[in-house]
Amino acid sequence: MTWLTSSIMARRGVSQSIEGEKHFLSEETQGQFHYVYGPYADPVMHIAPGDIVVVETLDAFGGAVKTENDLPSKVLNMPFVNPQNGPITVKGAQKGDVLAVYIESLLPRGAQPAGTTALIPDFGGLAASSLTHLNGPIAERVKKMEVTPNGIKFSEQITLPYEPFVGTMGVSPEIEAVSSLVPDYYGGNMDLPDVAPGSAIYFPVQREGAYFFIGDCHGRQGDGELCGVAVEIPATVTLRIDLIKNWTIPGVRIETENFIMSVGSARPMEDAARMAYRDLVRWMVQDYGFAEDEAYFLATQAGKMRVGNMVDPKYSLGASMLKKYLV
Amino acid sequence: MTWLTSSIMARRGVSQSIEGEKHFLSEETQGQFHYVYGPYADPVMHIAPGDIVVVETLDAFGGAVKTENDLPSKVLNMPFVNPQNGPITVKGAQKGDVLAVYIESLLPRGAQPAGTTALIPDFGGLAASSLTHLNGPIAERVKKMEVTPNGIKFSEQITLPYEPFVGTMGVSPEIEAVSSLVPDYYGGNMDLPDVAPGSAIYFPVQREGAYFFIGDCHGRQGDGELCGVAVEIPATVTLRIDLIKNWTIPGVRIETENFIMSVGSARPMEDAARMAYRDLVRWMVQDYGFAEDEAYFLATQAGKMRVGNMVDPKYSLGASMLKKYLV
Amino acid sequence: MTWLTSSIMARRGVSQSIEGEKHFLSEETQGQFHYVYGPYADPVMHIAPGDIVVVETLDAFGGAVKTENDLPSKVLNMPFVNPQNGPITVKGAQKGDVLAVYIESLLPRGAQPAGTTALIPDFGGLAASSLTHLNGPIAERVKKMEVTPNGIKFSEQITLPYEPFVGTMGVSPEIEAVSSLVPDYYGGNMDLPDVAPGSAIYFPVQREGAYFFIGDCHGRQGDGELCGVAVEIPATVTLRIDLIKNWTIPGVRIETENFIMSVGSARPMEDAARMAYRDLVRWMVQDYGFAEDEAYFLATQAGKMRVGNMVDPKYSLGASMLKKYLV
Amino acid sequence: MTWLTSSIMARRGVSQSIEGEKHFLSEETQGQFHYVYGPYADPVMHIAPGDIVVVETLDAFGGAVKTENDLPSKVLNMPFVNPQNGPITVKGAQKGDVLAVYIESLLPRGAQPAGTTALIPDFGGLAASSLTHLNGPIAERVKKMEVTPNGIKFSEQITLPYEPFVGTMGVSPEIEAVSSLVPDYYGGNMDLPDVAPGSAIYFPVQREGAYFFIGDCHGRQGDGELCGVAVEIPATVTLRIDLIKNWTIPGVRIETENFIMSVGSARPMEDAARMAYRDLVRWMVQDYGFAEDEAYFLATQAGKMRVGNMVDPKYSLGASMLKKYLV
Repeated sequence: MTWLTSSIMARRGVSQSIEGEKHFLSEETQGQFHYVYGPYADPVMHIAPGDIVVVETLDAFGGAVKTENDLPSKVLNMPFVNPQNGPITVKGAQKGDVLAVYIESLLPRGAQPAGTTALIPDFGGLAASSLTHLNGPIAERVKKMEVTPNGIKFSEQITLPYEPFVGTMGVSPEIEAVSSLVPDYYGGNMDLPDVAPGSAIYFPVQREGAYFFIGDCHGRQGDGELCGVAVEIPATVTLRIDLIKNWTIPGVRIETENFIMSVGSARPMEDAARMAYRDLVRWMVQDYGFAEDEAYFLATQAGKMRVGNMVDPKYSLGASMLKKYLV
Repeated sequence: MTWLTSSIMARRGVSQSIEGEKHFLSEETQGQFHYVYGPYADPVMHIAPGDIVVVETLDAFGGAVKTENDLPSKVLNMPFVNPQNGPITVKGAQKGDVLAVYIESLLPRGAQPAGTTALIPDFGGLAASSLTHLNGPIAERVKKMEVTPNGIKFSEQITLPYEPFVGTMGVSPEIEAVSSLVPDYYGGNMDLPDVAPGSAIYFPVQREGAYFFIGDCHGRQGDGELCGVAVEIPATVTLRIDLIKNWTIPGVRIETENFIMSVGSARPMEDAARMAYRDLVRWMVQDYGFAEDEAYFLATQAGKMRVGNMVDPKYSLGASMLKKYLV
Repeated sequence: MTWLTSSIMARRGVSQSIEGEKHFLSEETQGQFHYVYGPYADPVMHIAPGDIVVVETLDAFGGAVKTENDLPSKVLNMPFVNPQNGPITVKGAQKGDVLAVYIESLLPRGAQPAGTTALIPDFGGLAASSLTHLNGPIAERVKKMEVTPNGIKFSEQITLPYEPFVGTMGVSPEIEAVSSLVPDYYGGNMDLPDVAPGSAIYFPVQREGAYFFIGDCHGRQGDGELCGVAVEIPATVTLRIDLIKNWTIPGVRIETENFIMSVGSARPMEDAARMAYRDLVRWMVQDYGFAEDEAYFLATQAGKMRVGNMVDPKYSLGASMLKKYLV
Repeated sequence: MTWLTSSIMARRGVSQSIEGEKHFLSEETQGQFHYVYGPYADPVMHIAPGDIVVVETLDAFGGAVKTENDLPSKVLNMPFVNPQNGPITVKGAQKGDVLAVYIESLLPRGAQPAGTTALIPDFGGLAASSLTHLNGPIAERVKKMEVTPNGIKFSEQITLPYEPFVGTMGVSPEIEAVSSLVPDYYGGNMDLPDVAPGSAIYFPVQREGAYFFIGDCHGRQGDGELCGVAVEIPATVTLRIDLIKNWTIPGVRIETENFIMSVGSARPMEDAARMAYRDLVRWMVQDYGFAEDEAYFLATQAGKMRVGNMVDPKYSLGASMLKKYLV
């Protein structure tokens, strides 16, 4: 956590305490899970900046898809999908602040096979929707996979690396309560693999206490989350949550030891790409002293673009720059 | 070239000759450069499958931007930009075949600094166009950079790796002659960094002789080619060009030692993403024995997406899968 | 109201009463206005199917733009814009029902000039946003216009017809509370000129009581609401609100004496267009006996498309068919 | 033709001759039809500004779909669809001029039923494409309709008005040769119902002689040409073709007795909408003396938007303003 404490925390003037109080938000403590990011639910926990929170999340199906025979169209009850833990309030958080969430670890929990993916009617990057097209649906299907920190058993022949991340995380909008299936400036269902252990995620606080939510962990995912369903797992996530005053950000930003990333969530996809790069340029100008045209040039020649999801109500893309070029 | 000869060439049944005749297409031999991908220009060279071609390309400005004072709006004469070498005809190529172009090397040529990038009015990923918006333009600017195989001197502080690739390459459409600024199923201005030394690029032949074009080399580029102008260089490119019979592909595909990639070029960007992944699934099914839903699942969990360009008349994205998972 | 009573009400089996109780929801009775469409606010009024409601709405600025010197960037306080009357609960309304809202009249109220339009930074169909572009903003400006039922005085030379409609209207989502700036399947900020006196608007009820909201009246508007701000007026709207059981609709539908219309709200715009036409085809099949391909053909040859807004978070388009062809 | 001669011709300083020479371009004279808009074909006719041309066009299928049993996937040979008459050269036309084409009449020709529409695999506004989606295709089908100036017999019950227009018309690009299925700044396959008898269509000339093409006549069409195939007819079209010097336009414009319209062709659809309205504002400023913000306001309150096609490689939309407001 050297880069985090020395670079981010010190620079942002956050609390000097390396580690605050430790909280445990178990599935039982959570009790009722939530399906919107909003200010209307009662907080389930109150913490202080610098505290550690260990959270037990459900998978995106709320555990309802237990076997490969549990078809989503049968066992899911819209809009009650993608259950979220929270809201957690952070002491002192005000509109205009930044909530910095550092992901320390993410481990699968529950009986094996814990990983679930599925083809769901009217959903997915290569599936036409009955709201826009006349074509018949593609066949529904559930696929279960064993998930351990040693790997994800996709098939007898193929084992994929365990590269877990949090699919849905963020703060509450000020007055809206938005489905946990949607990503936007406040975070939410970004389905972006960089929201992973080792990353600090910065969220623009919209209301007093921040109202932090988290859920929808993934054992791994390819770029774009093509069929709309990653390797969905119930998980135990350990977070260090901090507060940064006097830093205004228009949307979600991410920092790791090696790079900074701005996230854009929008449709069509080019608007998400523009939002991500536009904010990366803004960040390079405001915090790293670049002239705007030089930042634009450097992003052109050295920027990286991650396609997080191409399936959710808004697509999420992340534009990043290696820190070694921020000189 | 082991993977190429053993895997691709043998598998596709291409000519067994490891190396054919070697041709040199100098700037002088080319004479008149071309600004469309089409069947109406006279071929500048005839080759046989397996031949090597060394080509001297101009930069995207045709060399007209000699200093940082040569503003594109002054020195360019639309639509005569992005000059292309070719057309080169390939003996025996017929509509329905695949032209396989392996890039052996790409070196900058000309006096230093050879690299040019620019902010051009009404163009670029973060610049509003006067065709769609009322806002005033962003300031025009040219930036020159020294480019050698050892690196690209972006500024006094920042040297970027030399990671060259071909911005524009492909075969002629059957009856259309399309601006060299446009990418599509036949190739063209994809501005995709994977079209690089070490890659084999597969193009669907549309007419007898294939009519191959190439130009627009880049010293490097970030994902998306954000401002619309990469590190543009005149270059010497060495290609091995081969022909594959009995392989039908709907658009451009790429293969390296480690992965296969399908390219989609379209607007909006999500359509390019869908085209790329849709063809990757098709390829996995047709050539690697996957069931369609399994290919769709694997692409979801392990696919990679490269944003080539987010600035050209069509956006180009590449969806890829590591070969180690094609089992 | 002959077509309404004979055609719609009878056909749908709604209450036979021609006119129910009459309610008046004045600005004072409303008290606190709302800025989200959601289930979390306390109802301001309870009515029964067939009742008449007269509502006093504020303009989209909540009256804060009193003169041409009151620039929106100074006097508005995001996200507290586009204030809504409601929620009104409708007795017996359940998820899966349809709320039928017939607009009897819409009159401007307040001191003249009551009509306001404006150019707002980062907003509007031809204005680049600082979230996606680097260009500087276009100049902010407010324009006031006198609005009476006899016409809208756009300038000394130009008087436009008074063709009023309701910009924002709909029912609450089941668990979401969405900004009143957003249109979607439940209605909201569609900014569609067909939501006008003489039209019946059908909304899919999402929760018990329906929770009806209304606001944002316009003296008139061109297709697309180009700059994002129509002729905004405070208004008195007279509605007849009815309930239809046993009719499932996926989104907003409209009926007048002469045509039926399905509304799609989405980005990119082609998805809104597809959603609108897709549902029109569904409606023609389900309620008018067309074979699906014949409905698709007839929509191709005789469908009309209204671009409601091309500026809101989702674009709203309406696809319509003349009733005389529904035979 | 009063408004045309007095308003347009006089104002633009075009030739004073009311009627020039009359030419007849029969199917036989045309001989070989063309499938691209480009400068590479030999002109079939030379005319002078002010001349009348009567053209016999083929339908979009080149007559290959003779009965309802001739499925497009069987009888069509891509890319040889949408055959065009021309190119016709216009004496004195230079790059930068405007070609003004007034449509005097459009009559169906050939044996009845002359009208053809069809559902074609992978094509149409509500049909998923196998290039982007995994869903199976919708069923292919051809529907024939009798077309006379008295009406179009859609079915036994439904007769639609004969409201003919030209689907594809324009001038050649300077160096490109683009498929006749594509619309763009030079015209082409706009499929816009306002390109009809009584309209003057203005095209920006790109090369000496203009190289005018025409084809793809429709007996009528709904907004958007939903399934991608209008009431396709072979036709006899009477045009008056004129030349306007010293008028620079960035794309296609249309004028009738009552309104002016700017056309935008692009993807996504909102970009076509923006292009259309952006040029309408430009036109109002340059030719009618509006301040830019006033033109933007008036377009917001009184502009009309026609969705021409939502199915071609670029979508075409037309933004219009009544002439009575251009004061």
